[in-house]
Amino acid sequence: MSFLQNVWYPAGWGDELDAASLRARTIAGIPIVLFRTESGEVAALLDRCPHRFAPLSLGRKHAGGIACGYHGLAFGAAGACIHNPHGPVSRALAVSAFACAERHEMLWVWLGDVECADRSLIPDLSFIDRSPAAAKSHGYLPTAADYRLGVDNIMDLSHVDYLHPNTLGGGALTKSKATVTQDGATVQVAWRIDNHVAPPAFAEHFPDPGAPAEVWTTVKWHAPGVMVLEAGGVPMGRPRSEGVNSFSLHVMTPETERTTHYFFANTRTFRLEDHAFNQGLQAFLFAIFSGDDKPMLEAQQRRMGDREFWDMKPALLPIDAGAVAVRRKLEDLIAKETSHARVA
Amino acid sequence: MSFLQNVWYPAGWGDELDAASLRARTIAGIPIVLFRTESGEVAALLDRCPHRFAPLSLGRKHAGGIACGYHGLAFGAAGACIHNPHGPVSRALAVSAFACAERHEMLWVWLGDVECADRSLIPDLSFIDRSPAAAKSHGYLPTAADYRLGVDNIMDLSHVDYLHPNTLGGGALTKSKATVTQDGATVQVAWRIDNHVAPPAFAEHFPDPGAPAEVWTTVKWHAPGVMVLEAGGVPMGRPRSEGVNSFSLHVMTPETERTTHYFFANTRTFRLEDHAFNQGLQAFLFAIFSGDDKPMLEAQQRRMGDREFWDMKPALLPIDAGAVAVRRKLEDLIAKETSHARVA
Amino acid sequence: MSFLQNVWYPAGWGDELDAASLRARTIAGIPIVLFRTESGEVAALLDRCPHRFAPLSLGRKHAGGIACGYHGLAFGAAGACIHNPHGPVSRALAVSAFACAERHEMLWVWLGDVECADRSLIPDLSFIDRSPAAAKSHGYLPTAADYRLGVDNIMDLSHVDYLHPNTLGGGALTKSKATVTQDGATVQVAWRIDNHVAPPAFAEHFPDPGAPAEVWTTVKWHAPGVMVLEAGGVPMGRPRSEGVNSFSLHVMTPETERTTHYFFANTRTFRLEDHAFNQGLQAFLFAIFSGDDKPMLEAQQRRMGDREFWDMKPALLPIDAGAVAVRRKLEDLIAKETSHARVA
Repeated sequence: MSFLQNVWYPAGWGDELDAASLRARTIAGIPIVLFRTESGEVAALLDRCPHRFAPLSLGRKHAGGIACGYHGLAFGAAGACIHNPHGPVSRALAVSAFACAERHEMLWVWLGDVECADRSLIPDLSFIDRSPAAAKSHGYLPTAADYRLGVDNIMDLSHVDYLHPNTLGGGALTKSKATVTQDGATVQVAWRIDNHVAPPAFAEHFPDPGAPAEVWTTVKWHAPGVMVLEAGGVPMGRPRSEGVNSFSLHVMTPETERTTHYFFANTRTFRLEDHAFNQGLQAFLFAIFSGDDKPMLEAQQRRMGDREFWDMKPALLPIDAGAVAVRRKLEDLIAKETSHARVA
Repeated sequence: MSFLQNVWYPAGWGDELDAASLRARTIAGIPIVLFRTESGEVAALLDRCPHRFAPLSLGRKHAGGIACGYHGLAFGAAGACIHNPHGPVSRALAVSAFACAERHEMLWVWLGDVECADRSLIPDLSFIDRSPAAAKSHGYLPTAADYRLGVDNIMDLSHVDYLHPNTLGGGALTKSKATVTQDGATVQVAWRIDNHVAPPAFAEHFPDPGAPAEVWTTVKWHAPGVMVLEAGGVPMGRPRSEGVNSFSLHVMTPETERTTHYFFANTRTFRLEDHAFNQGLQAFLFAIFSGDDKPMLEAQQRRMGDREFWDMKPALLPIDAGAVAVRRKLEDLIAKETSHARVA
Repeated sequence: MSFLQNVWYPAGWGDELDAASLRARTIAGIPIVLFRTESGEVAALLDRCPHRFAPLSLGRKHAGGIACGYHGLAFGAAGACIHNPHGPVSRALAVSAFACAERHEMLWVWLGDVECADRSLIPDLSFIDRSPAAAKSHGYLPTAADYRLGVDNIMDLSHVDYLHPNTLGGGALTKSKATVTQDGATVQVAWRIDNHVAPPAFAEHFPDPGAPAEVWTTVKWHAPGVMVLEAGGVPMGRPRSEGVNSFSLHVMTPETERTTHYFFANTRTFRLEDHAFNQGLQAFLFAIFSGDDKPMLEAQQRRMGDREFWDMKPALLPIDAGAVAVRRKLEDLIAKETSHARVA
């Protein structure tokens, strides 16, 4: 496997990184240390001192950057050595620096060339920014599975009827017709069912909770593993804008070839100031993701071992259309990047 | 290493599998899920859904078979898909099924062609069936060692004088003369010593416990890892049929190349209704197998690492005759199966 | 990597091995069992019975040697079989024996030819023997890092100012000028600073603790991983013999390619009868080595993974002069031994 390089990887939540801390996080096989500059901006360096290969994340903050905890070499946010207690500061002492950004409450890292790191390519997750504090939450689950299995999991939400039958499921998604569309580098799956009873969380906001409703779910994927999931319902015949909605984020950032940083967030368009409901919902979702999805993804990975997905000849079903479109697009993007690199 | 395919592998005890449960057990490197059909018969499928490679053992019972816990595909005991919530049932959705049987309180699985699975080839362990409930017990010990080390251990019982010096041992086996015989695909080792004091458990049933006795032990091996061990004693000069005996079973089923399912059972011809004695004996044997044998086998394996036994040029002793005969026979059977497969 | 063979490896502390015990210790990839003969001398055998590869360290003492715990074969200190309960004692039953010695409170093992094992090549650590009991201590830390990283750590003591800033450090070593000298197969680094305030432990013995002092530290390395560290201070202008000193031992014995037996000892020339001070000092040093050095070495190793140090192109600093001299000398010694072996 090779990983996409010229792409923004979510590397953590902004609130995981305070002014004093150094956070180690391996992204696509590359050990990275994240920290904040004095102005509060996020910085990302290779987490390996060029001198003796100590992880810089075991060091400490230093004026203008961070210092290695082994022999005191200090580096700035751009990777240049800014302090050498043992001799002159030279260019050879630099460490690789990565372009990074903080947006939509997340920390983003670009693994490829710093000059190519166009911040306008960060997927639009502004639904998080717009949501009041009492109507959003987020979390993180390290998962011992290939990140593409995590992406498959979200791109085929029919699994909720079987993996979460008594919580999120109920059969509606299985009965829905899914439509897959591609738009440039994104892939979208839309499920829609008409004249169905809406899930209680939505229906309780309708004039008549038992009335037939239009229920929909869409997932929009941005390479390589950022997915926005919208689920909503509206009484049959009314425009969607009158309905109630939840927007959630599912991010699968590869840590290594077989481990994944699973970041997730949840927002909604109802009960916007209900802190207690919000806390309960957060705990509810965490229990499901950690108790159902993570064990299933890890079990899948164990059964796959070191083999590649296509080599194992999976028996594809219509429900796989979205996940397969994503895998094909991802393979395409990686192949393009690899061939481009070969020319350059 | 390659494993024998056309042979019955003990995969568990019948009482490990109730009507509701799915049990995952890897046999010779193949992940298998065991369950009972509605009529109570054991069934064995590859424990990997053909769709997304989820372990079927994480699923649930389904009318006529089991359903995957990820997307709800269901399979019958013969491996055919019997339910697809997402589209038509097709042949491509089948999963590998294995011939299986329940006999002598054990679950048996045949890894090779289902058509070749002749149930008359299951070794005769009817001593278990004949034994009253209060005179038998069984157990299971997962062991991190090549199953052939476990077979060696039973085929050379001289180890009891050194590995279990204060419990099962006492020097009699070392002093006994062992005779190795082969009969078709089985290998038998017989130890016999005359004019020896019988072990207390046997001697207490003699008219004169201290009288000189004939003491014998035999182990009969069936490929690849089923061994029946008979140990008994009788006052010198009397026929064996007048003596007291214990019959036990030692099974080494390969899980992977370096891990083993060790199943064992014990029966006897005395104290047939003594439940308390039976419980004590079971605990006593489990303590010995788990406290002496398993650690030694695992330590042996650690010292061998990834190397093969013969490549390490073991210094063979006369006591190895039975174990070596078994290894040669096993290599022969595997070679035959491999060359046969190549021709076919 | 290959390991030096014709060299004395410290394999443990003498007090780790009492008359009854068998101690397993892997040295440079070779599993060894250490025990004492009836006269109390240390003996070292390959910890793998030639019969069935059981670790002999799981066995027991036997008159004149040790007996395997599996089938009772016994071996003497020279490796010859001295008892076979199952047949004649033959030469084929021998196990490899290693030359060994007990000196300076340590157990030493020579991995190469026994005939070449010249005990006069054991480095002189007689400062340990000369030190009163209340002025010395020793310890052991298994460390999951290449032993050469442990050697680098001691050969470049500038790390104390950054890894131990609030305990052993203080900036003096960074400010000192280090001089590297080679003498045959040894490498020595000497740090010296004049007109500096001595560390409190030294200065408190001066007529005027605040007076400017000469402070020095030297490390002398013996291949492959034995280092004697002398640190001392004396009021400026007075001869070193009037100063106070501590002598300590740092030993990095390779266990495997990426794990190390770290043995250390500490002696001093002051407070010679102060048991309480001695205990406190031992606890203080253990806390530093286990809490600072071991985690850093292990983190370095994790960042290096399976790669070799030079292949990773470290950015060398002047402070690395001693460590680099040692690495070059070690590579030289290993290359010589390898080419010599090829000729022979």
